[in-house]
Amino acid sequence: MSKAQFTREKILQKSAALFNRQGYAGSSMSDIMQVTGLKKGGIYNHFKSKDELALEAFDYIVGKINQRYSDALKGKRHALDRLRAIIQVFRVYIDEDDFLLKGGCPVLNTAVESDDTHPALRQRVQAVMNSWRHLIHRFIDKGIERRQIRPDVDADTVATIMISSLEGAVMMSKLYGDPVHMQRAIAHLDQYVQTLAVQG
Amino acid sequence: MSKAQFTREKILQKSAALFNRQGYAGSSMSDIMQVTGLKKGGIYNHFKSKDELALEAFDYIVGKINQRYSDALKGKRHALDRLRAIIQVFRVYIDEDDFLLKGGCPVLNTAVESDDTHPALRQRVQAVMNSWRHLIHRFIDKGIERRQIRPDVDADTVATIMISSLEGAVMMSKLYGDPVHMQRAIAHLDQYVQTLAVQG
Repeated sequence: MSKAQFTREKILQKSAALFNRQGYAGSSMSDIMQVTGLKKGGIYNHFKSKDELALEAFDYIVGKINQRYSDALKGKRHALDRLRAIIQVFRVYIDEDDFLLKGGCPVLNTAVESDDTHPALRQRVQAVMNSWRHLIHRFIDKGIERRQIRPDVDADTVATIMISSLEGAVMMSKLYGDPVHMQRAIAHLDQYVQTLAVQG
Repeated sequence: MSKAQFTREKILQKSAALFNRQGYAGSSMSDIMQVTGLKKGGIYNHFKSKDELALEAFDYIVGKINQRYSDALKGKRHALDRLRAIIQVFRVYIDEDDFLLKGGCPVLNTAVESDDTHPALRQRVQAVMNSWRHLIHRFIDKGIERRQIRPDVDADTVATIMISSLEGAVMMSKLYGDPVHMQRAIAHLDQYVQTLAVQG
């Protein structure tokens, strides 16, 4: 990695964590200078504007989360195991002290901040949300094909229920600083996923 | 209502709607002046600071939502009807074009914005969240007492599942501008609430 690439990566990492805690509107250029330890010019060398940095920092942090999905899904072949693996990824918000994700789920945070104010960011969040929904959809379709999941299960509905419960629970656990809400949502969804199984 | 009270009420209403769309950090004093049609001095006559206005605007908008709960619960005596009434209140985010709630659920929005940045606001959100959880808790306790709800139901868990699913679904429906996610969450929770019933 060249020095320029190294600096670029550091700016992305530090500002992604900052945006995830304080929001985009709540993070000033001087906050960004402080967390990166760079002068304004050093940041503008790599990103044309705070807006461009916001978009790229969002992609960066989502890339890290998607890597967690890939890792969690490795070797999982059964549809129910795959759905459970996705659910378990959300433990990161209560079990780990990940510098990047201290502010909670960036998809939730950015959705809430951007939906009425920032069309370009909102579009990025929609794209990530689409990719998560399609992943769940695909696992369910495969599961129906392999007779692991009941043929009457509606994949879109399952995706909405799983994602909304998990994201809502991140919000509640973060609000109280208490893992119990995430734990309850995970236990509930594990049971819910079981009800999708073909009875055998 | 005196002229001063009228002005105060107008500032609260307009800025509550603004904060709910743009967030607190995303709303400048000049945004507040624009939506209220007042000069800075006119606003500071009633509120010492943007921070004080933020706290009072949050209480104001939550008061309007709590009024909706009261209305929805009027005359409902059966525990399951009470839980369903709470769930139905969330239709406001997809069925109505309420000026105040155009930005979505202020409890979700303020929780996400304040959890890492604004202790006083976060405390207010916790208090509202507590009151919602206690309401659900009380309905379930009563329902168990009256043999409408199974005695093994854990009221705290039900509160977490209901609130997290509903808030997560507001986020998804707002993100896409599509009511379907809220509709799915409501249908799912109606079924879930049914599973709490004493079999008869």
